[in-house]
Amino acid sequence: MKRINTMNMKPQSDSPKIININPLDPEEFKRQGYMMIDFLADYIRNIENYPVLSKMEPGYLRKRLPASAPFGPEPIESILKDVEEHIIPGITHWQSPNFYGYFPSSGSIAGFIGEMLSTGFNVVGFNWMSSPAATELETIIMDWLGQMLKLPKTFLFSGDGGGVVLGTTCEAILCTLVAARDKKLSQFGRENIGKLVVYSSDQTHSAFQKASQIAGIHPRNLRVIKTKRSNCFALSPDSLLSTILLDVEKGLIPCFLCATVGTTAVATIDPIGPLCNVAKDYDIWVHVDAAYAGSVCICPEFRHCIDGVEEANSFSFNAHKWFFTNLACCCLWVKDHTALTKSLSVTPHFLRNKASESNQVIDYKDWQIPLSRKFNALKLWLVLRSYGVENLMNFLRSHVQMAKTFESLVRLDKRFEIVAPRKFSLVCFRISPLAIVNGVFKGAEACYNGKLLNDEYVVNEVNRKLLDSINSSGNAFMTHGEVEGAFVIRCAIGATLTEEHHVIMAWKLVQEHANSMLGNY
Amino acid sequence: MKRINTMNMKPQSDSPKIININPLDPEEFKRQGYMMIDFLADYIRNIENYPVLSKMEPGYLRKRLPASAPFGPEPIESILKDVEEHIIPGITHWQSPNFYGYFPSSGSIAGFIGEMLSTGFNVVGFNWMSSPAATELETIIMDWLGQMLKLPKTFLFSGDGGGVVLGTTCEAILCTLVAARDKKLSQFGRENIGKLVVYSSDQTHSAFQKASQIAGIHPRNLRVIKTKRSNCFALSPDSLLSTILLDVEKGLIPCFLCATVGTTAVATIDPIGPLCNVAKDYDIWVHVDAAYAGSVCICPEFRHCIDGVEEANSFSFNAHKWFFTNLACCCLWVKDHTALTKSLSVTPHFLRNKASESNQVIDYKDWQIPLSRKFNALKLWLVLRSYGVENLMNFLRSHVQMAKTFESLVRLDKRFEIVAPRKFSLVCFRISPLAIVNGVFKGAEACYNGKLLNDEYVVNEVNRKLLDSINSSGNAFMTHGEVEGAFVIRCAIGATLTEEHHVIMAWKLVQEHANSMLGNY
Repeated sequence: MKRINTMNMKPQSDSPKIININPLDPEEFKRQGYMMIDFLADYIRNIENYPVLSKMEPGYLRKRLPASAPFGPEPIESILKDVEEHIIPGITHWQSPNFYGYFPSSGSIAGFIGEMLSTGFNVVGFNWMSSPAATELETIIMDWLGQMLKLPKTFLFSGDGGGVVLGTTCEAILCTLVAARDKKLSQFGRENIGKLVVYSSDQTHSAFQKASQIAGIHPRNLRVIKTKRSNCFALSPDSLLSTILLDVEKGLIPCFLCATVGTTAVATIDPIGPLCNVAKDYDIWVHVDAAYAGSVCICPEFRHCIDGVEEANSFSFNAHKWFFTNLACCCLWVKDHTALTKSLSVTPHFLRNKASESNQVIDYKDWQIPLSRKFNALKLWLVLRSYGVENLMNFLRSHVQMAKTFESLVRLDKRFEIVAPRKFSLVCFRISPLAIVNGVFKGAEACYNGKLLNDEYVVNEVNRKLLDSINSSGNAFMTHGEVEGAFVIRCAIGATLTEEHHVIMAWKLVQEHANSMLGNY
Repeated sequence: MKRINTMNMKPQSDSPKIININPLDPEEFKRQGYMMIDFLADYIRNIENYPVLSKMEPGYLRKRLPASAPFGPEPIESILKDVEEHIIPGITHWQSPNFYGYFPSSGSIAGFIGEMLSTGFNVVGFNWMSSPAATELETIIMDWLGQMLKLPKTFLFSGDGGGVVLGTTCEAILCTLVAARDKKLSQFGRENIGKLVVYSSDQTHSAFQKASQIAGIHPRNLRVIKTKRSNCFALSPDSLLSTILLDVEKGLIPCFLCATVGTTAVATIDPIGPLCNVAKDYDIWVHVDAAYAGSVCICPEFRHCIDGVEEANSFSFNAHKWFFTNLACCCLWVKDHTALTKSLSVTPHFLRNKASESNQVIDYKDWQIPLSRKFNALKLWLVLRSYGVENLMNFLRSHVQMAKTFESLVRLDKRFEIVAPRKFSLVCFRISPLAIVNGVFKGAEACYNGKLLNDEYVVNEVNRKLLDSINSSGNAFMTHGEVEGAFVIRCAIGATLTEEHHVIMAWKLVQEHANSMLGNY
């Protein structure tokens, strides 16, 4: 596929050049494609050799790369050499089996090659006509997934609802919040935007606050309802009700509740059914954010965690977290998709077409923030088919089982405590205040300059130092959370490559660092 | 990398199964990766054999696929067979050399393998620490690109500004609009959100209206200023000023202007400098949306199109449109990035870390709507390095040259007219009303049931039918625009594989369909 000779056609350049590069030449595509596959296969094979948390210092890369783009082309071989030498050292390896930070970003072969397919087609699926398969496949697999989760028919296209693949939970919350906002404003008048109130708990993901800010909700109308350890940090329907009542009394307008199944800090499960019961009386839109834990609810033994979802207005989970689908892939279902499209549909002249006007098709541009979108459904379809429902359930169960193993190891060491009951595959632990008070740690007092060791501050500092020490080793990476002022170490299991021996080694690592930092028990 | 035997660990299942699938097994990764590369190389090789616009009917795919996900795994071979048989027929082939619709989505090998790399690493780069290379490479190449565009230092990290890779222009507009909104509200008080006014022309992309709706701007405060053919459909600074004056008189608060370089309908260039001069007096944030045409401004002979950008507050273009970077990749630069981060930064406890608190690093989560993000910069880095600045300029120039060829062919056929002066690589044409009035088309009157042929309605219908007829052939795909009520056929050149002979053939196709529909001249 030789390129045209542009010698005679280049308009204003001083020294016309012949372009004979075809940036989509199939043979070169194969050569470079194979090379990249080999490179990534090696990356996966060697992934345990890299420190999980990058050891690079701020600004390291600017010192190593040129200050401007090259004028002439560079071969792929040099670029891959630079990736090896300069990029990989600056990566925190989310695919490592020793990655336990945040929530997992569990890739898979199916997710990866599904994304390749989408990137290769490179179609823009903003409306049905711009690539019918992109829209239709998405409606089909969102029904498949909805069935796997036993979502009620009201959330499925085969019922009155429907689902969409977005990039992130923040987008899912923003889209549904804007729909809920506009429903209220069309009822009460646009001028009352400052009166709308939105509800969450102190465990709700920050995405909710961000979405509220973007949607123009008055910051003083964001309710962050306190949760308690005694209630496993779940949002209490009574607290919700009393908060709503105060707002109604003030003449404010309750609008939206974000409930969570599997919170970020400790994977709390908010009681969806009872919360919906409260919300219903005030016509509050309830969104259920199950970003992390939604996937595992395909297992019958976990389905009860989303009981009550039939009363909610919308539900989302991230297939790119713990469902083997490479970034980015957030699955959102809504009951009333006309509420969504009323807020998000803008159809300029150039996008009008017969199919859309026939009302026989979905135009996903009206279900999301941007106009453009990739062929999102392919990778999810490949994940579902390549592994099948049974294997997917078992992968997730094996992670939960590993978390149980880790939890039982923590419980065997009296210096540590489980801070919140383990949920799913997340274990939250810390060196216990009691252990510190009892002075079991050699030299611990000296470390903290005579401060009382049972101070919450000191307990937190001890745990923070322990976490830093573990992460600096490069042998595992965990992150922290906070509940009731306590600094908690989170071990979130779910990286695709993690096996039981990794988890056992991770616990040994925690113990070693506790030992060397604070002395043996 | 054998998986653990989960026989003894599966908790509540009736018939425990052994999992011996490793979803990231390197050997299987290679096998399936190669297979997918071969599949896509064949797709590119055969792309001209497919009808550009899909011929499928609404609902075609649901009839062909199962109603639920498979319980057991399916081999990649069956899945690829289904892609061939059921997905490809439902694709509108944006990578086809005969694709002239909307604006191009020009992929390349470099863009493709860059996305593979990002998908393979599958890191989440929300803050610096979560993968330093992801953030640092992005800051570096945004400076590279900024230099290529000769953006002033005030937009670069090497100056006081900075750039970020987002998904789409709609996100770029929404982020900057929210920043501008909050700046005004912190000055005038939150309760005045209903008084903020935002400005655009009737040629501005619908993304602006959508972003305004999402950000909670009162719909009645969205100004859509009329443009004129005599002014090439550019937004007139005088019209802007008079509109602002009316708003100020009413006690409203001018907030944001979206100016465009390369509008969707006819690729109009708004006069950025003069518009900024007007906006400055009212402290209006000016965003320059150069989604399509920004890339070509790396060529010295086109740089003047963004003259005045130094007075704007932000500037964006889509590298996924006409810059050989596969979806999705919108490049946004801002002068005052603290305005952006003030509105978009939410840092919950679990994301606090030493690097962020040192203020030595960028946390891109605060420059965008979602929290999570892929390693966006890789594909753009690969595009810049694999082709080099010179080739990139020449690729773009060759498309402009092809558009000139197409334009000159249109001008040779007296039945047609160029509706707006060709800009960049977009040619806007139609069958001229004069040609229709003069009755040059055999049987045209009969087609339109005796309606007067110079009615704008009839002229539009004739052109709409012509476009449908061309697209139904499957041999090329163009879309339409509208200016001053006229239906315009748009031929947007920029698909990576398009060569001059394709463009010549496309014009012959237009003529053939005009002939057979309406008779020869």
